[in-house]
Amino acid sequence: MEITITKRTQLKPKPDENNLVFGTEFTDHMFIMDYTEGKGWHDAKIVPYGPIELSPAAMVLHYAQEVFEGMKAYKTPEGDIQFFRPMENFARMNRSNARMCIPQIDEEFVFDALKQLVALDQDWVPHAPGTSLYIRPFVFATDPFIGVRTSLHYKFIIILSPVGAYYATGLQPARMHVEDIYSRTVVGGTGEAKCGGNYAGGLAAQEKAHDEGFEQILWLDGAERKYIEEVGTSNIFFKVDGKFITPELHGTILPGITRKSVIELLRSWGEEVIERRITIDEFVDMYHKGQIEEVFGTGTAAVVSPIGGLEYQGEDMSFNNGEIGEYTQKIYDTLFGMQTGTVEDDLGWIVKL
Amino acid sequence: MEITITKRTQLKPKPDENNLVFGTEFTDHMFIMDYTEGKGWHDAKIVPYGPIELSPAAMVLHYAQEVFEGMKAYKTPEGDIQFFRPMENFARMNRSNARMCIPQIDEEFVFDALKQLVALDQDWVPHAPGTSLYIRPFVFATDPFIGVRTSLHYKFIIILSPVGAYYATGLQPARMHVEDIYSRTVVGGTGEAKCGGNYAGGLAAQEKAHDEGFEQILWLDGAERKYIEEVGTSNIFFKVDGKFITPELHGTILPGITRKSVIELLRSWGEEVIERRITIDEFVDMYHKGQIEEVFGTGTAAVVSPIGGLEYQGEDMSFNNGEIGEYTQKIYDTLFGMQTGTVEDDLGWIVKL
Ligand SMILES: Cc1ncc(COP(=O)(O)O)c(C=O)c1O
Ligand SMILES: Cc1ncc(COP(=O)(O)O)c(C=O)c1O
Repeated sequence: MEITITKRTQLKPKPDENNLVFGTEFTDHMFIMDYTEGKGWHDAKIVPYGPIELSPAAMVLHYAQEVFEGMKAYKTPEGDIQFFRPMENFARMNRSNARMCIPQIDEEFVFDALKQLVALDQDWVPHAPGTSLYIRPFVFATDPFIGVRTSLHYKFIIILSPVGAYYATGLQPARMHVEDIYSRTVVGGTGEAKCGGNYAGGLAAQEKAHDEGFEQILWLDGAERKYIEEVGTSNIFFKVDGKFITPELHGTILPGITRKSVIELLRSWGEEVIERRITIDEFVDMYHKGQIEEVFGTGTAAVVSPIGGLEYQGEDMSFNNGEIGEYTQKIYDTLFGMQTGTVEDDLGWIVKL
Repeated sequence: MEITITKRTQLKPKPDENNLVFGTEFTDHMFIMDYTEGKGWHDAKIVPYGPIELSPAAMVLHYAQEVFEGMKAYKTPEGDIQFFRPMENFARMNRSNARMCIPQIDEEFVFDALKQLVALDQDWVPHAPGTSLYIRPFVFATDPFIGVRTSLHYKFIIILSPVGAYYATGLQPARMHVEDIYSRTVVGGTGEAKCGGNYAGGLAAQEKAHDEGFEQILWLDGAERKYIEEVGTSNIFFKVDGKFITPELHGTILPGITRKSVIELLRSWGEEVIERRITIDEFVDMYHKGQIEEVFGTGTAAVVSPIGGLEYQGEDMSFNNGEIGEYTQKIYDTLFGMQTGTVEDDLGWIVKL
């Protein structure tokens, strides 16, 4: 499929790289293509970033048939632009699409479209420390139809946003609330898909935690509210007695690409990483025995985010004196170094533009 | 708040009342208002039905912060237009809004806006047998923001669609599949809110059931896949040994307005209605003992829909010889009669335009 390109005639002023706020500024262009049942994906184009027209009956506005991805492009000290494991994101998007009855995309084609888009907007990729270009591919149902069924029309769009650090407080360890009233998902639900409904459903718990002074929530499984699952938009890892534990993937948590990379990285260092179900009670017990050495979240937005404290049913637990752990820091430095081209990419994860 | 009205200059041709398809045609006008944090709801207006502009970063397209309602207006033989318990829908919408962190709407104001809209488009309310005007109020997050938080801007819209019978097969009893792999929701989730994510998450199970020749699915609870919850977009009732049983409301199923009305109607006839949790195993057991007399779904779209058969783990159960039951028919005749003005409204449920 050809990609038609319509360039913006008047480029937008670029924001100050040292004061980037996450997710509020968008670049000059975006990529769009449309899907029509029977015809497939068509009309691929790069156009100036700007509003889109939708029918008020567009199914996405009613039934939330939608999926998204989140990935980044980075600038190296030499000024090269590079991606981190980009094909993992498009593969995951297709798994999310399958779960949400959305048609598959051609992963190679879409990555090619992304490269063309980033090349066109390359001056938007920031290079101040900690900055990057956040990439948001997403797809949603556009049939103007009232009634619950799979849509016959979709739009796939990629927008780009130059971003600073995700957490305003930087790599400062955060305090989290272990949520035991609200549920996120269960086996057989949509937890492992990156679909809108998972996030909207989590807002109430997140707001409650914010009001109580916590930065994020740690979700427990929705069926028994007993097993540890993931944090807001990150997966979670514990360092326990010198070993690493992270909840296993069994359908309810997002299979994070950072999670996968951290597991592989730790193993490449000779560390032991165990993927298994773990209850909050077992965790509290290990905490009381002084076994919990480090706790951190992993995700594209922040790479690694140290967790300094967890509150569960009124008990406040704090880890590593509320300071960032040795491994948490080392993982961050290594991954972010690879991403930004200051650390050798031994594992073959970097794809140059 | 004032409602500004901009009328369409050229009215659209109206569809053939005897061949209305559900949810595909929309009337000449729609109601819109906007919300801005700190300012509240503003700019209420009735405008020609047509496309809306959205930022590609609008949060609804990514995080599905959205809620909707479904209700109807009916034409009586005298040509009057009337609603069925409309304030129940706006009250439920506010409960859904609360769950999804969406600001509350002024229920009286919004009903007034609806009345003005229906009055303007009154020639679109069909009067052929079985037809009505479907009303779809909905609200969604419009902040152009990438990141998971509650939006600061929303749009509330009402669109109208003249509809025929919801089920193509009319009041013919349908065959349903009892879903025991996919889950819809759990306690602490969003099951009792009318939010998009619940419906998108259910599509895969619905498609699988359609492929296997079933019209709909009966959901079991997501935690144990043991308790009977609801059908696609209806609540469910069983007539067992002369009594009526319907699953109780405990956070996972939609509190249907038809469900509530059927309970009240049956009780007004002196019938016993029990709201309680009921497992699929108990149901199968009652079926084997020959106790199941009638099974039906209730919802705004179809009022009452007879269920002729249920398939669970390979076993095919059929009820009342696959024919519509006596009470199912009587409830339909009474409710639809009240709605369309041919049966006396003893219970005070009708509100005239
Ligand atoms: C729910 C959830 N879990 C985990 C993650 C981390 O995944 P990744 O490392 O691929 O960014 C994300 C976000 O990206 C997420 O939204
Ligand atoms: C999931 C679900 N359950 C039940 C119902 C029935 O509710 P009501 O009778 O208010 O239409 C609906 C739809 O309206 C629904 O979407």
